[in-house]
Amino acid sequence: MTETIPEFQLADWSTLQLTRVEQALGGWVACPDSKPAAAGLVNLNLAMRYAVLDGGKRLRPLLVLAACEAVHGNPQAALRAACAVELIHAYSLVHDDMPCMDNDVLRRGKPTVHVKFGQAQALLAGDALQALAFELLTPDDDTVAAATQARLCRMLARAAGGQGMAGGQAIDLASVGLPLSSGQLHEMHRLKTGALLQASVLMGANCGTASAQVMDALHDYGAAVGLAFQVVDDILDVTADSVTLGKTAGKDAAQDKPTFISLMGLAASKEYARQLLARALASLQTIDTLQSDGLHRTQALHSLADMLVNRQH
Amino acid sequence: MTETIPEFQLADWSTLQLTRVEQALGGWVACPDSKPAAAGLVNLNLAMRYAVLDGGKRLRPLLVLAACEAVHGNPQAALRAACAVELIHAYSLVHDDMPCMDNDVLRRGKPTVHVKFGQAQALLAGDALQALAFELLTPDDDTVAAATQARLCRMLARAAGGQGMAGGQAIDLASVGLPLSSGQLHEMHRLKTGALLQASVLMGANCGTASAQVMDALHDYGAAVGLAFQVVDDILDVTADSVTLGKTAGKDAAQDKPTFISLMGLAASKEYARQLLARALASLQTIDTLQSDGLHRTQALHSLADMLVNRQH
Repeated sequence: MTETIPEFQLADWSTLQLTRVEQALGGWVACPDSKPAAAGLVNLNLAMRYAVLDGGKRLRPLLVLAACEAVHGNPQAALRAACAVELIHAYSLVHDDMPCMDNDVLRRGKPTVHVKFGQAQALLAGDALQALAFELLTPDDDTVAAATQARLCRMLARAAGGQGMAGGQAIDLASVGLPLSSGQLHEMHRLKTGALLQASVLMGANCGTASAQVMDALHDYGAAVGLAFQVVDDILDVTADSVTLGKTAGKDAAQDKPTFISLMGLAASKEYARQLLARALASLQTIDTLQSDGLHRTQALHSLADMLVNRQH
Repeated sequence: MTETIPEFQLADWSTLQLTRVEQALGGWVACPDSKPAAAGLVNLNLAMRYAVLDGGKRLRPLLVLAACEAVHGNPQAALRAACAVELIHAYSLVHDDMPCMDNDVLRRGKPTVHVKFGQAQALLAGDALQALAFELLTPDDDTVAAATQARLCRMLARAAGGQGMAGGQAIDLASVGLPLSSGQLHEMHRLKTGALLQASVLMGANCGTASAQVMDALHDYGAAVGLAFQVVDDILDVTADSVTLGKTAGKDAAQDKPTFISLMGLAASKEYARQLLARALASLQTIDTLQSDGLHRTQALHSLADMLVNRQH
């Protein structure tokens, strides 16, 4: 029997999913309940919305939604998880850009939050965005099972915290100007960016049920994609310009930060990214073989990995 | 029949509970898994432990544990909730003390976290402590029911976020040098300190089951205690010295911040604190009447309210 499944178009799928994500984020990073709201609450909300809305590639939400599709999970849970990981990502950028950290003034082509709203407001907006992420995961209704809510909170907390993203940033902080070994550089990125990207995949998968084998394959996919993302980020930092990137290019070298480029050079980094993509796609192949119902539910994950490695910004 | 229940001793009860809390916090704000851990992870962990351990009155944990006792709830859930609220409180102090906020150098009689570890580490430590709070609430075992885990995360996220503690801090930020009305000052404190104190009580109560009437009474108790705490804080800021307080005294006036003293004067503030204590105790009386089994399970809550209003630091 010949398969007649139409070719998967990432652009169409992404457009549809991003519409859902943007609409949900716009509603959830919402104005204060009380009318008239105190000026301070309005200011905080403006800073939070500025940090989250109308910008960003939304890679993490797309990974959540694609992984949920792969296991045919609860779409309402996945939409909340997608927005929650994006809020964690957004808060980390706000804090990371502050003068005491990277001191960056340009993000997504716009002034950073502390430039626009002041440092105190940026600090608070980041803090409030992190709390909001966990609020989104725990709706007080029956759209998401309590066990799923608890599991998603556990996964996000671990990925965001001291043994995840924040831990990776701390390694980064301690590594400026130091020669890192390959193992140390991998450990830093596994935590700093990899943990949340991998959690995006696994949280999406945990919006449904899947065999341990499928979960293992998604775990591998997430690890490969998370690492590939950082390798490509390092490549773009030396090959793209600030306008294309929407953020300051060349800043890693300027800040004397260890990168995959400084560790292995540009050509080997590009080859490494290709190898990681191949590893991610092989994991999906495993899932397709396990779920041999011919539905090809890993198509979005496949296209996202491809896009992520071959992106220009 | 004459009741022969021995008189409740807050000091004995607190000593016992604080031992549990300190031990649990010491274990949970733990060193990194990986050996040897990256230097950055070790630094981050040191800053987190410095911010949390060996200091603080632990009012919030005690409120959680006392409220759990009042409803005969799950002590393991309550211990996690107690530590989680303390982590949120600790992170808020770390960020609040930073130069872009209150710029305070003394806390609990010690240099503040950013003075000791630098601003970048303080920022990250606060962020990681917030994530850890939600990790503590979601253990991957059967000690706490999934529904309880999800409910506790929901309550903590709301109390900590933009419509809770962070929102109150944003109002505070926007209010420096402005004359606030009584309503505005109450709204600021209801969010800034009241939300987490009230959540402590309600999270403790949600570690068990209680009738809607008992929950309503605990809600009132939490609101009264949360507000009383701030009124007393304002009183102590003008009547106590820095050594007794363990933090810089007189800083509200120095920073031209609106307080209950600037709103209503010292004598009226003291009277207001007494009224709020009476309101809190009346709520407990309601609970004792509802739970007429003669077990007096609200004794710890009673003594804590009393201590909180009559404290000298």
